[in-house]
Amino acid sequence: MANAIDRLIHEFTKLPGVGEKTALRFAFHLLKEEPKRAHDLAQAVIDLKERMRLCSECFGLAEHETCAICKDARRDPTTICVVEDPSDLMAVEKTHVFRGLYHVLHGAISPLDGIGPDELRIKELLQRLSLRQVSEVVLATNVNIEGEATSLYLTRLIKPLDIKLTRLASGLPVGGDLEYIDATTLTRAFEDRHIL
Amino acid sequence: MANAIDRLIHEFTKLPGVGEKTALRFAFHLLKEEPKRAHDLAQAVIDLKERMRLCSECFGLAEHETCAICKDARRDPTTICVVEDPSDLMAVEKTHVFRGLYHVLHGAISPLDGIGPDELRIKELLQRLSLRQVSEVVLATNVNIEGEATSLYLTRLIKPLDIKLTRLASGLPVGGDLEYIDATTLTRAFEDRHIL
Repeated sequence: MANAIDRLIHEFTKLPGVGEKTALRFAFHLLKEEPKRAHDLAQAVIDLKERMRLCSECFGLAEHETCAICKDARRDPTTICVVEDPSDLMAVEKTHVFRGLYHVLHGAISPLDGIGPDELRIKELLQRLSLRQVSEVVLATNVNIEGEATSLYLTRLIKPLDIKLTRLASGLPVGGDLEYIDATTLTRAFEDRHIL
Repeated sequence: MANAIDRLIHEFTKLPGVGEKTALRFAFHLLKEEPKRAHDLAQAVIDLKERMRLCSECFGLAEHETCAICKDARRDPTTICVVEDPSDLMAVEKTHVFRGLYHVLHGAISPLDGIGPDELRIKELLQRLSLRQVSEVVLATNVNIEGEATSLYLTRLIKPLDIKLTRLASGLPVGGDLEYIDATTLTRAFEDRHIL
């Protein structure tokens, strides 16, 4: 078959969740579009790798030395939300509920995968806490074994620093139907129930 | 938010069936990969638009003046399979059942969309039939209103030329369960039933 299209299909199938049929659809879609569209996509892919780096302060994604959030004077620098990945940061940002700064660990403690505390940006977090005036740290790691282990590890380290330490609530998702919720989540929702 | 990643997400969401969440997944996947991977993808996208053109003979996709299939001496030049789009050609090629040449119409007759016979490569097909020694034309347009209309239109034009004219069989898909097949397909399967 025609070579350029096969190569593109091959590249597309490396994206997560993209099989050959989807890759084919993408390729034919681009083929029908005007050349500018394909060029824009290619440029955006290249820009991503060339321009994006980690913010020297929070280790979130940045196009400059520090990211837009750390630079934003309207954000509250005394509250730091600790997340595992940049995608988690983006998820929290979308809610507009948090107006403080972030700290991205770039992973979670997972001995089975050979990821210990030293592989994460924990040292840098402690450094921030010692240098800056921080009044609250919100632990927003994932609610799975690795995320909970990381949260526990950080609790031990931060608790003695006399900084308010919080963890995101865990329980029933909004719109969640009790009969479809897994037992662990339901148990957690019971344990963390609050008085009305 | 970080700009380069937003732009890439925006470009990805223009692909068919890609929403913001999928685009985000693609972007973060590329971000984690080594730069070469992103570069390969970008290059493949650009190559597609710069290198691909239409074969001057069959109007399938080609990287040169004529496509790999038309150039292949092992293919039977006396049989021509007429398809609507390059993607249909690829679907037939995958079966390895057809060893002749193709003719890509680039669409189907659809008066509602303003697509008449003149917008398709029908003139070029008739020219091929008059210049080359063709013994059979297989109509492999889609089995929908536009495809059937196109097939009917071509039948009227080609029938008088004294060339064997065939249409792909229509009926139950292999693995199809009778109770889940739509009534039109089932009717067609009945009408086209063959003696054993």
